[in-house]
Amino acid sequence: MNNKITPERGFLEQEFEQRLLRAQKIMKSYKLDGILLTTPQNIRYFTGYNSQFWESPTRSWFLVVPASGKPIAIVPEIGESEFKKTWLDEIKSWPSPRQEDEGILLAKSTLDDLPKNHGQIGAEFGKEMTIRMPIRDLFKLQDITITNIIDGSDAIWDMRMIKTDAEIERIKFICSIASDAYNDLPSKLSIGNSERDAVNKLKIDILKRGADNVPFMPGISGLGGVSQIVCGPSDRILNNGDILFIDTGSTFDGYFCDFNRNFAFGSANSDIEKVHEILWQATEVGIKTAIPGNSTFDVFNSMNSILEEGGALGNNVGRLGHGLGLQLTEPPSHRPEDKTVIKENMVLTIEPGIEYEEGKMIVHEENIIIHKDGAELITKRTPREIPVIK
Amino acid sequence: MNNKITPERGFLEQEFEQRLLRAQKIMKSYKLDGILLTTPQNIRYFTGYNSQFWESPTRSWFLVVPASGKPIAIVPEIGESEFKKTWLDEIKSWPSPRQEDEGILLAKSTLDDLPKNHGQIGAEFGKEMTIRMPIRDLFKLQDITITNIIDGSDAIWDMRMIKTDAEIERIKFICSIASDAYNDLPSKLSIGNSERDAVNKLKIDILKRGADNVPFMPGISGLGGVSQIVCGPSDRILNNGDILFIDTGSTFDGYFCDFNRNFAFGSANSDIEKVHEILWQATEVGIKTAIPGNSTFDVFNSMNSILEEGGALGNNVGRLGHGLGLQLTEPPSHRPEDKTVIKENMVLTIEPGIEYEEGKMIVHEENIIIHKDGAELITKRTPREIPVIK
Repeated sequence: MNNKITPERGFLEQEFEQRLLRAQKIMKSYKLDGILLTTPQNIRYFTGYNSQFWESPTRSWFLVVPASGKPIAIVPEIGESEFKKTWLDEIKSWPSPRQEDEGILLAKSTLDDLPKNHGQIGAEFGKEMTIRMPIRDLFKLQDITITNIIDGSDAIWDMRMIKTDAEIERIKFICSIASDAYNDLPSKLSIGNSERDAVNKLKIDILKRGADNVPFMPGISGLGGVSQIVCGPSDRILNNGDILFIDTGSTFDGYFCDFNRNFAFGSANSDIEKVHEILWQATEVGIKTAIPGNSTFDVFNSMNSILEEGGALGNNVGRLGHGLGLQLTEPPSHRPEDKTVIKENMVLTIEPGIEYEEGKMIVHEENIIIHKDGAELITKRTPREIPVIK
Repeated sequence: MNNKITPERGFLEQEFEQRLLRAQKIMKSYKLDGILLTTPQNIRYFTGYNSQFWESPTRSWFLVVPASGKPIAIVPEIGESEFKKTWLDEIKSWPSPRQEDEGILLAKSTLDDLPKNHGQIGAEFGKEMTIRMPIRDLFKLQDITITNIIDGSDAIWDMRMIKTDAEIERIKFICSIASDAYNDLPSKLSIGNSERDAVNKLKIDILKRGADNVPFMPGISGLGGVSQIVCGPSDRILNNGDILFIDTGSTFDGYFCDFNRNFAFGSANSDIEKVHEILWQATEVGIKTAIPGNSTFDVFNSMNSILEEGGALGNNVGRLGHGLGLQLTEPPSHRPEDKTVIKENMVLTIEPGIEYEEGKMIVHEENIIIHKDGAELITKRTPREIPVIK
């Protein structure tokens, strides 16, 4: 089923050393003595530790990344033995669940023992992140530590926004198998299937092709377009004149793809063909504009002018693409207020959408990597003419 | 493949009215003027709104549940049209992403407009929960609101810990199809498969039988037992003498099962047979002890004495079962420090584990519902003799 060579899962120690060195340079520029991390993506980024057990919110996990030296993990006992297999030297643990102290005293002493050059450490307080611990434990930690804990989200995003070659290899792989599965989907669908049937077929196919998981796969349909892109699938039956939108964030070795495809049922009328072509053109321009030195605002502008010329009513998505990696969505955003300068080794989505009549929206999405000379498309381009399913 | 009748997805309006009335009684007893919710599980509990889009951390979502009257949703524009289809009357929204104000001013005015009887509202600050919004936005909200925001986690767990009949129907369904898939798994496995092969086969089977998703499926193997139960699957090949442990949190209509199974490869030696039998007996006793009026401590004790008699070295799990529902793990816990009184319509796991030699652990798990007269097993009991795969 899958003729592709599956990359090795997991990373070499030198990959983590590189990530750490870069992170420590960034910490220096932000005047941070370290960063405190609590979320799966950030802990995995610096350690390689991978556990589905993070699905359970019962226990907190911490990683302290100092401005010099290796990260220090503070983890519940249930995770200790596997954490000892990572490249870290120092693993602290406590018997958990233990509500009276879920690792807070260990976190305090670890933070307070850091060399104090700037008197502050950064934590996951800001944009597009949440902190994964009970807030009352965070308040307690803030009360007892002598360390000033400030928002480190800008520094953390500076670290993660530029991908390494090894990260890019994973994203390319998951984009590639999801592309193949999308391309095969029309042969598996027919009028009379439900949205849920379509999603299940695609999900199982992506898993069979070697994805680790499919955390995100909304499927939504409507006559001539969709009224929204966030809720679904339902048991709605796909019929003549319908457009089916399927989006997926599937993962391989922790890394996401994030792109969608559209399918017409029965036939595609001229409105749909026209909108599909405008979106195809807008994507072309977006990909061409996403070059080092341009900003995410430039990418937005280049696409938006085509969408407006095409008569778009605007839509409720609020942006025309974003970053991706260990999360389905990451900074930056292609939108007027985001002036992030595009750099080599960013991985971005190009996601133009048009609401051409009230309640009739069509959205395209592709994934790209930024190289020195321009963007590389890593999804297989959506067909220029919308596939029609009979 | 699946001969079971799939329950309808989604709930009737009267279900939400019931949940709200119960919640408002509980708020009264905690002297709360309302609760502020930000996480998918809690927002879904009170509204039925279901979106995979929560996988993207870019936008915040809020629900204010007042001490009297219907909940008020404050959601990004991308979610507004579908939120209007819920049973709520009042949906507020803002164009998002918009970092300078991701709904904080709307949340402030909604909280400040609540009738002030006690002067405080509860939020997701405490045990086994995190808040889903950037912390710096929470700090900003706390700065500008005149409402005292306190830890509401005890109240929220009092609401969710007792399940309605409709919730139980969903949990029973997902437990039932996962049980069938586990029972069929030995026929699909053989010596020479990898941990990952086994997990993929089970995952695809559970999806084919009607699960909505499989967010949690660690698979771990080891000679005579496993050294941990949180990281895996890997590409380790299953061989003579190995024990394969697979756990799953699969979901239907938002609700989880959470139970595991063990398989021996080649043959099961007498140590394994003995430990398997002790765990089987401990589970029997745990199920019998889980009756209204007993505490989670009683359940722990009843099982633990059997495990200790059986020579368990203790293990790093830290408890012998827990609640489940909209989350893979929820309060209460079967552990010495948790004295929660067991009540009708709780849904619990019974999860004894034995480390019989260093690095050789076997863990069993079943799911039960508490009725007036005792517990009902809703997973199909693990075979008394461990299945052997050749």
